[in-house]
Amino acid sequence: MGLAIKAHRLPLQIMGYDLRREVMEEAHARGVIDAPCPTLEACAEADLILLATPPRAIYDCLLQLAPRLKPDTILTDVASVKAPVLAWAQELLPYPEQFIGGHPIAGTEQSGLQAARADLFEDAPWVLTPTVQTNPDALQQVEALVQSLGAIPTRLNAEQHDREFALLSFLPHCIAFSLIALQQEHPTQLPGGRSWRDATRVAASDPELWTELLILNRQNTLEYLNALTHRLRELAELLAQADAEQIRAFLRVGSVRYTPRG
Amino acid sequence: MGLAIKAHRLPLQIMGYDLRREVMEEAHARGVIDAPCPTLEACAEADLILLATPPRAIYDCLLQLAPRLKPDTILTDVASVKAPVLAWAQELLPYPEQFIGGHPIAGTEQSGLQAARADLFEDAPWVLTPTVQTNPDALQQVEALVQSLGAIPTRLNAEQHDREFALLSFLPHCIAFSLIALQQEHPTQLPGGRSWRDATRVAASDPELWTELLILNRQNTLEYLNALTHRLRELAELLAQADAEQIRAFLRVGSVRYTPRG
Repeated sequence: MGLAIKAHRLPLQIMGYDLRREVMEEAHARGVIDAPCPTLEACAEADLILLATPPRAIYDCLLQLAPRLKPDTILTDVASVKAPVLAWAQELLPYPEQFIGGHPIAGTEQSGLQAARADLFEDAPWVLTPTVQTNPDALQQVEALVQSLGAIPTRLNAEQHDREFALLSFLPHCIAFSLIALQQEHPTQLPGGRSWRDATRVAASDPELWTELLILNRQNTLEYLNALTHRLRELAELLAQADAEQIRAFLRVGSVRYTPRG
Repeated sequence: MGLAIKAHRLPLQIMGYDLRREVMEEAHARGVIDAPCPTLEACAEADLILLATPPRAIYDCLLQLAPRLKPDTILTDVASVKAPVLAWAQELLPYPEQFIGGHPIAGTEQSGLQAARADLFEDAPWVLTPTVQTNPDALQQVEALVQSLGAIPTRLNAEQHDREFALLSFLPHCIAFSLIALQQEHPTQLPGGRSWRDATRVAASDPELWTELLILNRQNTLEYLNALTHRLRELAELLAQADAEQIRAFLRVGSVRYTPRG
């Protein structure tokens, strides 16, 4: 986000804080931030605070920042789960109306400074999850910032966000980790083609981060895991019967984007 | 393959046959083939016959070509299942030692002439499945052709090929069709990010073709479908218990390519 702010020449001064001093220094050296922040507490001085950490660390940050926050400081985050983060903001912050939950639908299986790209958010939806309590001015400022980075701000209820992303992202991650585990058990001599590489790419995501995310969004993820295994078992039964007509019908339901051969 | 042969300036004359005359004519107009072949039977005159059809049509082609084949004509195919195709060659051909089963690990969810690309096979593994009976000269000629198109010929037993691709390709296809079906049942307001697009890309594959393929490789596919649902159920149980330690262990087994954050 620092790189994107610089690339779009936004007139903002960026102070960065990371638990590891060397990461802050490298970010500074690469121009991702204008200066390191000496302590997490010192970040409370900012006009806008962006929490870009794994979700559990958001809790810790909110806890430490809370006593020092000014009433008009805006806070936002980029975690892939939203309802639990909003609950923490509600629980911990003196001015929870200033917290805007956020989730840019961008990024890859990589993480850390070496994966940073100034154009990461170009044309990407950036979900914001205001509540009835949210300060509309704070929301508009975050929307304006997101938009000026090239992203498309999209408002959505936090619960709906978490339900939709259990299907759209958590399930593909569960599948990718499971496929790689299957291949570990049944090693292949051949490499996979593109369908394999695409289905397993996100198995290179951080298992620590995904353990946190899955537990925080476990009810929705469980429902979709169950719905998926139900469907896969249904397909297995049709295959066991070699029922071509029913298999074709099954695949057709799942192939909305199919365009006939030309 | 016609485009690739032309791009590599191989001194071959390419006759093309398709059930639909307009496809042959467009292929001719685009320089993919040198001339249309008047009938399927007339293709039997060729020195090398490449069958690039859905698998069931390979059976029909072999049946019609068989009575007209010369002893030294080489035949090969590009189907994603190999053991059934080899069995048909054995059953139908007068000189089955001239049939080399083939499977280029290339291609996308698209099909037909409009998806043709001269560089499709560049650096792609091209599996060939000789048997004890195969004529070594015929095998070498197909290997040389494949290599001159930029692909990497790889010999593998047909049964092992079918077992490995049940995991590497059939399973990702079953998953993609199932995910799109799930989304049909639970429509989302948000579009998916890259993990969703990658996991569902091949759901745009032809359901007719995949019905054939799944049935022809159903025993292997069934085994992997069952192994996958078993793993997904195991993950669901860990999630239901919110067992962070076991979830982390599950994800770590499936994340061989993980490199720590820097």
